[in-house]
Amino acid sequence: MPAPPELIQFIDDNAESFIKRLGEAVAIPSVSGDAKHRQDVFKMAHWLNAQLNSYGVETQLTDLGKHVMDGEELQLPPAILGKIGNDPNKKTVLIYGHFDANLSDGWSSEPFTLTLGRGSTDDKGPILGWLNVLQYHAENQKELPVNIKFCFEGMEESGSEGLDELVEKEAQPGGWFNGVDCVCISDNYWLNTRTPVLTYGLRGISYFKINITGPSWDLHSGVFGRTIHEPMTDLVILMSKLVDPQGHILIPGVDEMVPPAFADERSIYEKLDYAIEDIEAAAGASIALSSDKVEVLMGRMRSPSLSLHGIEGAFYGAGAKTVIPAKIAGKFSIRLVPPQTPENIAPLVNAYLEAEFAKLGTKNKMVVEEIHGGRPWLADLNHWNFEAAKAATRAVYQQEPDMTREGGSIPVTLTFAEALGANVVLLPMGRGDDGAHSTNEKLDRSNFIEGSKLLGTYLYELAAIQGKK
Amino acid sequence: MPAPPELIQFIDDNAESFIKRLGEAVAIPSVSGDAKHRQDVFKMAHWLNAQLNSYGVETQLTDLGKHVMDGEELQLPPAILGKIGNDPNKKTVLIYGHFDANLSDGWSSEPFTLTLGRGSTDDKGPILGWLNVLQYHAENQKELPVNIKFCFEGMEESGSEGLDELVEKEAQPGGWFNGVDCVCISDNYWLNTRTPVLTYGLRGISYFKINITGPSWDLHSGVFGRTIHEPMTDLVILMSKLVDPQGHILIPGVDEMVPPAFADERSIYEKLDYAIEDIEAAAGASIALSSDKVEVLMGRMRSPSLSLHGIEGAFYGAGAKTVIPAKIAGKFSIRLVPPQTPENIAPLVNAYLEAEFAKLGTKNKMVVEEIHGGRPWLADLNHWNFEAAKAATRAVYQQEPDMTREGGSIPVTLTFAEALGANVVLLPMGRGDDGAHSTNEKLDRSNFIEGSKLLGTYLYELAAIQGKK
Repeated sequence: MPAPPELIQFIDDNAESFIKRLGEAVAIPSVSGDAKHRQDVFKMAHWLNAQLNSYGVETQLTDLGKHVMDGEELQLPPAILGKIGNDPNKKTVLIYGHFDANLSDGWSSEPFTLTLGRGSTDDKGPILGWLNVLQYHAENQKELPVNIKFCFEGMEESGSEGLDELVEKEAQPGGWFNGVDCVCISDNYWLNTRTPVLTYGLRGISYFKINITGPSWDLHSGVFGRTIHEPMTDLVILMSKLVDPQGHILIPGVDEMVPPAFADERSIYEKLDYAIEDIEAAAGASIALSSDKVEVLMGRMRSPSLSLHGIEGAFYGAGAKTVIPAKIAGKFSIRLVPPQTPENIAPLVNAYLEAEFAKLGTKNKMVVEEIHGGRPWLADLNHWNFEAAKAATRAVYQQEPDMTREGGSIPVTLTFAEALGANVVLLPMGRGDDGAHSTNEKLDRSNFIEGSKLLGTYLYELAAIQGKK
Repeated sequence: MPAPPELIQFIDDNAESFIKRLGEAVAIPSVSGDAKHRQDVFKMAHWLNAQLNSYGVETQLTDLGKHVMDGEELQLPPAILGKIGNDPNKKTVLIYGHFDANLSDGWSSEPFTLTLGRGSTDDKGPILGWLNVLQYHAENQKELPVNIKFCFEGMEESGSEGLDELVEKEAQPGGWFNGVDCVCISDNYWLNTRTPVLTYGLRGISYFKINITGPSWDLHSGVFGRTIHEPMTDLVILMSKLVDPQGHILIPGVDEMVPPAFADERSIYEKLDYAIEDIEAAAGASIALSSDKVEVLMGRMRSPSLSLHGIEGAFYGAGAKTVIPAKIAGKFSIRLVPPQTPENIAPLVNAYLEAEFAKLGTKNKMVVEEIHGGRPWLADLNHWNFEAAKAATRAVYQQEPDMTREGGSIPVTLTFAEALGANVVLLPMGRGDDGAHSTNEKLDRSNFIEGSKLLGTYLYELAAIQGKK
């Protein structure tokens, strides 16, 4: 059962009005990370809720309580739970999206007045793709091929506060998400600008802070230079022992925990439509770790990585201040892949740093803190949910999708997978150069329109495929 | 010719009014490093100028032009040149001081309303000590035992802009400083709270910035971790190779350039009234590099030191940002002792960093910049200028002064020494715990009052001692 040609035709015929609607959505500056835009996130929730209702989706705005941001207590924007269809003979898919946008500086023009601006690809475009599909069915009195549950939130760019609890609650018997057979999240991107992607893995993360304290206050390097142990000296040595310039993690046991690539695993990466040039274009410099595409892609997708982010408490300004900072903290994070978890990584990090610190012979003090962590996620890419998404991709793009793992984290993915025990497919709409979270975010017209067809077709392929129900 | 007992008596009798006057001076918030206080620096210049004039000092306010600070063009406060007495049979001493104060955060109370507050010891106390001595001579129609030239500036805490040029100009034949036989600067501190000090050496400085650039913009560590060479990894390795936790400089040739201590040089440091406990009290922690006092004092006074100050361009805030910074700069400075100079140190630093950078095998780029430098200074501590200061110390404090070299820099010292070819003595008024440049700066009453006697007595000892003129 491919998607009805009328659906495809409807999307083409209504492209202009769909783009206009995306413009309206993008024009609401629903930046969750900025208190002064908090009312806009509420506005966006109500806008989206009204759209869903107009297409027959039953919704519930869920109060997630309050939180404190930048010292101010704020009401959290509601999550929108939605459902349409309850035919026990149909599969039920849960669709997740977020209607908040990321704060980013340096736009070359006022971002919220552009049709394709902040939040366009991340994640309003995909949400509106679903609206486009719903509109076809509502306006033409067509029954949807599957039951759909929606979960749209307004705090994704600010840590998805309250969402884990909500998902876990609604996954309980009698909850909103009862009966969900599979999950679809459209909140990531193609590798490049050419080839559609299905994503089956995400790295986890462990974020650490090495605190070194010495003097009780900052000291003058003229007066104290070469009389005391300086915290910066100790910290920089420790930070230099975490990762080498080629990306190898030097903490014993971390790289070693990951099983070697299986026999033909390299071929998965060979097949991906992604070249060293693509990586280097995205970074804006010829600085790839290797000229071997497979090695670089495996570095991103199936290897852990360790990045040093900076130092808190040291002199960071311009100019030439001659301070000996008294109390500093080096920040680094490790991206995790299975079987790594924050729980099995932390003891390795702590033991290594304690041992290296002991070697320094310093009288300063070190405390290692784990600031936050999230487990990696890896889905069964042979599940019928993926097969449906592949079939939809072939139908709309006449292309086989690239099967990817992502280097970053989308924590809600793991929450859904674990709370619902359901397969999750990441079915992106946008391109690798859309610049989510950065200046001049955009979503190409063709990705929005073809992507809407893709989402609609996926629902029909889901209904058609052999699988649960 | 010791100081007349009437002078000593006058200072004791007028202590309360002297302290009140210091309170007035401290109450003018003449912070040179803060544009919004610039008018206060001018106010302080005019206040001081009026005081000098009232005691018969002929003055000239010298316009030093404009400069740009924090993006704002500002008029520089004037330097005050002064002179009193021109008896060709008397020695002529040049006295330097600065009437601006340092900006510092975290005062436990409003600093400018305290009698003993910001700028009290650094450097308004000493300047007012000279006023106290002038007042005695003016009010009692007593002739000064020496001719005095003054040079008071209002930009010391902000790099003494324009001063070097002024000193060099006025040192020329026909200039204001013609005929100067020796120089006295009271702008440093005792080692401890007990024993007066004369200072005969200062370290120089070379300040460096290691710039590493990689990507064209900051990257997300999820997407790019383990695909590209990260600038922070390279920088932290380079910074870790500059100095060890025990303070040894690892740049070949730098420590080696300093001659070993001569036969009984250790005894100079043995004699100083300064213990490991003093260093650790000043640092607020038990972190001295050694339990051997001589070693620690030599580390500060006759050894170079290397301090790492921080990183510009990396993540420095609180929280857990997962950025890969694109363009960063590590800052460090080396305190220099003779025969080190910025000119002979820079090639060693550059060659070493280039060699270490080459070993990294990174595709990022490095540029090493020297931001500023200043030569070390070492005076002949057997000069009659020092003998006069020693005799004055014995007379006022009944103590032999500690003869010290300082770890920091007072660049104008070298400027005077070189431009005038004259011996410079540093004759401090305040104690080691006065906290110049830090919160809760103070000057003890006894240091202000006895210090005023010391400055006055020094003038009489200068006049009496065998030497030039």
